[in-house]
Amino acid sequence: MEDVTEPIFVIPLWADLLAVALGGIQGALFASGFRGQRRLDFLGVALIGIMIGMGGGLIRDLLLNTTPVTLQTNWYLLTATGASLFGMLLAGMFERLSKLIIGLDALVIGLFGAFGTSKALALGLPLVPAVFVGVCAAAGGGVLRDVLMGLPVAIMHVGSLYAVAAGGGAFVLAVSQTLGLDAVWAAVIGVAVTTVIRVLAVVFDISLPEQRALYRRKVAVETSAIPIIRPPAP
Amino acid sequence: MEDVTEPIFVIPLWADLLAVALGGIQGALFASGFRGQRRLDFLGVALIGIMIGMGGGLIRDLLLNTTPVTLQTNWYLLTATGASLFGMLLAGMFERLSKLIIGLDALVIGLFGAFGTSKALALGLPLVPAVFVGVCAAAGGGVLRDVLMGLPVAIMHVGSLYAVAAGGGAFVLAVSQTLGLDAVWAAVIGVAVTTVIRVLAVVFDISLPEQRALYRRKVAVETSAIPIIRPPAP
Amino acid sequence: MEDVTEPIFVIPLWADLLAVALGGIQGALFASGFRGQRRLDFLGVALIGIMIGMGGGLIRDLLLNTTPVTLQTNWYLLTATGASLFGMLLAGMFERLSKLIIGLDALVIGLFGAFGTSKALALGLPLVPAVFVGVCAAAGGGVLRDVLMGLPVAIMHVGSLYAVAAGGGAFVLAVSQTLGLDAVWAAVIGVAVTTVIRVLAVVFDISLPEQRALYRRKVAVETSAIPIIRPPAP
Repeated sequence: MEDVTEPIFVIPLWADLLAVALGGIQGALFASGFRGQRRLDFLGVALIGIMIGMGGGLIRDLLLNTTPVTLQTNWYLLTATGASLFGMLLAGMFERLSKLIIGLDALVIGLFGAFGTSKALALGLPLVPAVFVGVCAAAGGGVLRDVLMGLPVAIMHVGSLYAVAAGGGAFVLAVSQTLGLDAVWAAVIGVAVTTVIRVLAVVFDISLPEQRALYRRKVAVETSAIPIIRPPAP
Repeated sequence: MEDVTEPIFVIPLWADLLAVALGGIQGALFASGFRGQRRLDFLGVALIGIMIGMGGGLIRDLLLNTTPVTLQTNWYLLTATGASLFGMLLAGMFERLSKLIIGLDALVIGLFGAFGTSKALALGLPLVPAVFVGVCAAAGGGVLRDVLMGLPVAIMHVGSLYAVAAGGGAFVLAVSQTLGLDAVWAAVIGVAVTTVIRVLAVVFDISLPEQRALYRRKVAVETSAIPIIRPPAP
Repeated sequence: MEDVTEPIFVIPLWADLLAVALGGIQGALFASGFRGQRRLDFLGVALIGIMIGMGGGLIRDLLLNTTPVTLQTNWYLLTATGASLFGMLLAGMFERLSKLIIGLDALVIGLFGAFGTSKALALGLPLVPAVFVGVCAAAGGGVLRDVLMGLPVAIMHVGSLYAVAAGGGAFVLAVSQTLGLDAVWAAVIGVAVTTVIRVLAVVFDISLPEQRALYRRKVAVETSAIPIIRPPAP
């Protein structure tokens, strides 16, 4: 880490804040539509927006053991909060937002994945962990959201292709940069790859093959603590 | 961060340990009353006590990228564990503890919020992220508790006013200190504001307005993975 | 931390990678057998393997505020991923794996607990927090797995003896080292103690006494958000 000779790739503040704002809007849109056992209040929706807007960057900086940049100025929190409120307004105005949510989501994971991978490479991490940090930065906000909202963690389940999109973009970025491409262009390509994979996966309903083990009943009974609830026969 | 000229505000060890002890008692009282699908054993109750007693400080130091002070001496863990055992004893002795739990809880989030905000300001963070670190320190232990116990995360749902109380106290503390008030008095005022808001919110059953989006059915079906369970008709 | 005179105890890379590989296999075996409300895809199983293989080390380094060693070379992630794929293959080949899963699990928590405690002691932490870091490193991967898979967190519930095994091994290691035993032998003894306690606990079905508070109904109704589901009377 000491012998970094190339100048550290600095993500411009406006680009970072743009990603935070888009994440905040997307998080608030998602959370506004949530109807679970308990409802979210205004603050809960804003918290999800802030979590999606800032969570990825926080996780990235924790993994890199650097001081979280999102806490070094007032702008990140103000942007994420403002974007969440704007997202709540949008959610009230439009009936059907699922396409907007999906599109924004794809762009946001692309941006966070690219920024995370770039920063990890700039700090001297090898290719594989740099891609890992990018995937964690891209998916981390969504994992925090699902855990806080008590939902099944989306990245774990059939049909998401979430991490594949994030990992693909981060990998292309890291390889491009290793081959000598300018860091900014590598980041642009990485964002594009992730966003396109994610949108195509949703449009064509592609999912990873579900893993099928042979031994099904025994272990499932032992490990599954979630009761299988069947509606009572009428 | 380098140009910090004012002496770093050091939270006295006794005050920090007092907060840890109160948190440990409160966490153990809460966990002792828990009856979910699976019961907690003694160790589970002690873990929740330790989590509430030390979780806020750990999260604060992670966000600030400083070495966790709670791990630099034996006293924090010994205090949190002892307080948890004491809390279990208390829970066995008294039938109705809900008032004690709520009062302790309000005081504990006040203390952790004030210590978190003060430390963030002392490290040179601007006002908004300093308040954010305070809120995370105040609410973090409870979030960890809810996630580990498989409960809905309290801070997310209607009726909590948790984060508002923590944020209000942290904000008043940060503004007072910015206006020149002594750090200790600012902390005392911050603790008082948080505790009073939280207790009043419970006493008068105040809650934030629930957010109501217009599009309800469609997205709810798509995003809610938790089945809505209705009791069978008799 | 500055006055560390003894040379820092360095865990050999092969030993660390062996623990990561065993963790990856164990995590993938566990996740392959999971049948919850939603199924895991291949990636989900691999993620659980990576989480179990690397989660403990990541949590250890976060708590110690050192740069995560698992991200400083490509080998950790490649090993964890390869081991997960191997674990999936194994899960497909054998019907009954529960004994293998339990044995591997006991060995893995022993290794992670010992490495975590050793590193914490080498960084100058006192005995109690060093043991705590060891327990977090041993149990952390499993907690992450349970949270991501939406399962009740195993360490919290009756019948686990998980943390007792991890804590016992970490304590014996720390005391042995304090009494002057060589760090490597102390680590070997620590691994053995944890593994044996854990295997014996499963074999003889030992569990901690469940905590029984006197006041049961009132608080349970207030705090338990998980509805108690009863099958409809026929």
